[in-house]
Amino acid sequence: MDIKEEALKKHYEWQGKIEVISRAPINTREDLSLAYTPGVAEACLKIKDNPDLSYELTRRKNLVAVITDGTAVLGLGDIGGLAGMPVMEGKCCLFKEFAGVDAFPICVKSKDVDEIVRTIELIADSFGGINLEDISAPRCFEIERRLKEKLDIPVFHDDQHGTAVVVGAALINAAKCAGKKLSDLTVVINGAGAAGIAIGTFLLSLGIGNLIMVDLCGIINKDDSYDNPAHEKIKAVTNNNNIKGGLADAMKSADVFIGVSKPGLVTEEMVKSMADKSIIFAMANPTPEIMPDKAKAAGAYIVGTGRSDFPNQINNVLVFPGLFKGALSVRAKTITEEMKMAAAYAIAAVIPEKEITPENIIASPLNKAVAESVAKAVADAYKE
Amino acid sequence: MDIKEEALKKHYEWQGKIEVISRAPINTREDLSLAYTPGVAEACLKIKDNPDLSYELTRRKNLVAVITDGTAVLGLGDIGGLAGMPVMEGKCCLFKEFAGVDAFPICVKSKDVDEIVRTIELIADSFGGINLEDISAPRCFEIERRLKEKLDIPVFHDDQHGTAVVVGAALINAAKCAGKKLSDLTVVINGAGAAGIAIGTFLLSLGIGNLIMVDLCGIINKDDSYDNPAHEKIKAVTNNNNIKGGLADAMKSADVFIGVSKPGLVTEEMVKSMADKSIIFAMANPTPEIMPDKAKAAGAYIVGTGRSDFPNQINNVLVFPGLFKGALSVRAKTITEEMKMAAAYAIAAVIPEKEITPENIIASPLNKAVAESVAKAVADAYKE
Repeated sequence: MDIKEEALKKHYEWQGKIEVISRAPINTREDLSLAYTPGVAEACLKIKDNPDLSYELTRRKNLVAVITDGTAVLGLGDIGGLAGMPVMEGKCCLFKEFAGVDAFPICVKSKDVDEIVRTIELIADSFGGINLEDISAPRCFEIERRLKEKLDIPVFHDDQHGTAVVVGAALINAAKCAGKKLSDLTVVINGAGAAGIAIGTFLLSLGIGNLIMVDLCGIINKDDSYDNPAHEKIKAVTNNNNIKGGLADAMKSADVFIGVSKPGLVTEEMVKSMADKSIIFAMANPTPEIMPDKAKAAGAYIVGTGRSDFPNQINNVLVFPGLFKGALSVRAKTITEEMKMAAAYAIAAVIPEKEITPENIIASPLNKAVAESVAKAVADAYKE
Repeated sequence: MDIKEEALKKHYEWQGKIEVISRAPINTREDLSLAYTPGVAEACLKIKDNPDLSYELTRRKNLVAVITDGTAVLGLGDIGGLAGMPVMEGKCCLFKEFAGVDAFPICVKSKDVDEIVRTIELIADSFGGINLEDISAPRCFEIERRLKEKLDIPVFHDDQHGTAVVVGAALINAAKCAGKKLSDLTVVINGAGAAGIAIGTFLLSLGIGNLIMVDLCGIINKDDSYDNPAHEKIKAVTNNNNIKGGLADAMKSADVFIGVSKPGLVTEEMVKSMADKSIIFAMANPTPEIMPDKAKAAGAYIVGTGRSDFPNQINNVLVFPGLFKGALSVRAKTITEEMKMAAAYAIAAVIPEKEITPENIIASPLNKAVAESVAKAVADAYKE
């Protein structure tokens, strides 16, 4: 049976991948009077007097909403929220299995930014954090920005920031392995959508020397004007030498290529044109921008992909469970840049320095110890 | 330690009364590829092609939202949704413990009817049913009505209909015990709010002979005009002899008194004025309209209350878990009057006819066999 058939069969068997259980026993009259009426009234009154106690007396303490509008589900595009729910449920399973964080999937049946923001705002008190998922660009930027303004709980669009953090973690170790400093790196990112822009912005926070963003229109440069406000914004802080042209031009002498674009866009010639000890993160899914064996043959020193069947799988499951666990543990009001940076360094540090090799720059997505390290680092990095 | 202190202590210990767990194992690469990417895409595509498959491939199949705006929480009034969450969580525990139905608590931070309706409408695809809870009247009527129109999943305001069904169940057996036919009964309901109106309407469905509703303004009659549209509506189908006056007038010669009002409103004289073998359901909480011993001393034949420390506890936990379980099992698009009647008769039937006594007209709220009977009856009664 192939993976598609097997997965579908399993989904029929599971009858939903999440389940809501009771933490309070309900067997005796006393149980009823403690967990429900009349005793429950005391917990209500405490929260009424001090809303912060909702983090002590309800599950909000450990609970994240995984919310989508279904407009950019996996590589499937705008399939709608209802059809996106198996992904959201799966994400909730990962939250629980990797970090013990309760997560609940919600799909919002609207594509209107105002309406999505308002809906999430109105139900936010039910949760301790909001993980936005599979929302198309550029809507995702505005939805996240406005929710961050309005809510005093962490809001995190995982497709952007989770990806950025795990790429950052991989790059920290890859640079170490290649004997290069982050500040000396020229990094080319192909694909200036939500994930590409978030990765670029985050790598600048981590201190890389030069970032070159490439999109369908070619290299983003300071002389051109862009309809996409995100491109207008990023052009000011990237492309130090203001080079122009296409992907092949960008990659000449670059230290790092990061692809969040399409299968097969990177040729062996492009890899050959890169600097010595080049680093390739070809993350198009399921088929990378260049296959690892081909990239290696063309001289790449380190290759990472999103796939589990090659070394160096760069997967954001290393990020979000621990990140939210840490944020919830200190009751963070937001996810700061410092918390994301702490997460990236914590993930990188899971591989002891002496074990870092070109085939081992990042922990396995199945390493359940990662979330705990990330949680601790994120909690320590939070300042109100 | 009194119940209040003990309940609060327990709430601190529980750290939330619900928990979201994973039904899918996530330990191997294969697990990840089945429950999450890439395998999960198959489940998404199936639902995209046939939205009905969301009931097979996601938890929606067995999942109810317990939603409040916090405007009428227990007897505490408008304490807000956040402060109401311990009640909502408790309700979710009861759903799971009594019927195996997953339930998830949501508070909506708005008191605007349009906004509440729209918010619930937009997240409804995440659930298989909606249990509205602790929403103040008359807003609760409109919210429920509009949601029933808009959604193709069951919507049920438990404070109205759950209460009505369990009172109906108790009355079926009480009438039997008193040797009276439902169609011969004159029933006085004191308190014409959401619960009172719902009980009255439901008892008329069950076929009682004469219903007299009493509110702060006195007996609702056909000659007076009422600001409350619910009162205007009910006056047409109640008070067959168009009597007028106060509660004492209403109770003269009545067979049944049902109180959803205030402690202590019923006097011994009023009970004495009732028909032979009178039935009193004094459900004000925590202190009934008249205490059972006092009512008995004044001649009442059967007395029920909402309390667990007297016989005949009339508690809607006997209703909602099984009712939703049954509705979900046949994927009902709505909860019909027939389903509610089936639930009432199923609850009544849990007490075998020969075991019915004035002290035993209704099953214990802790009887976990009730939900299964109710579910079966409700499923059988559903017609699309």
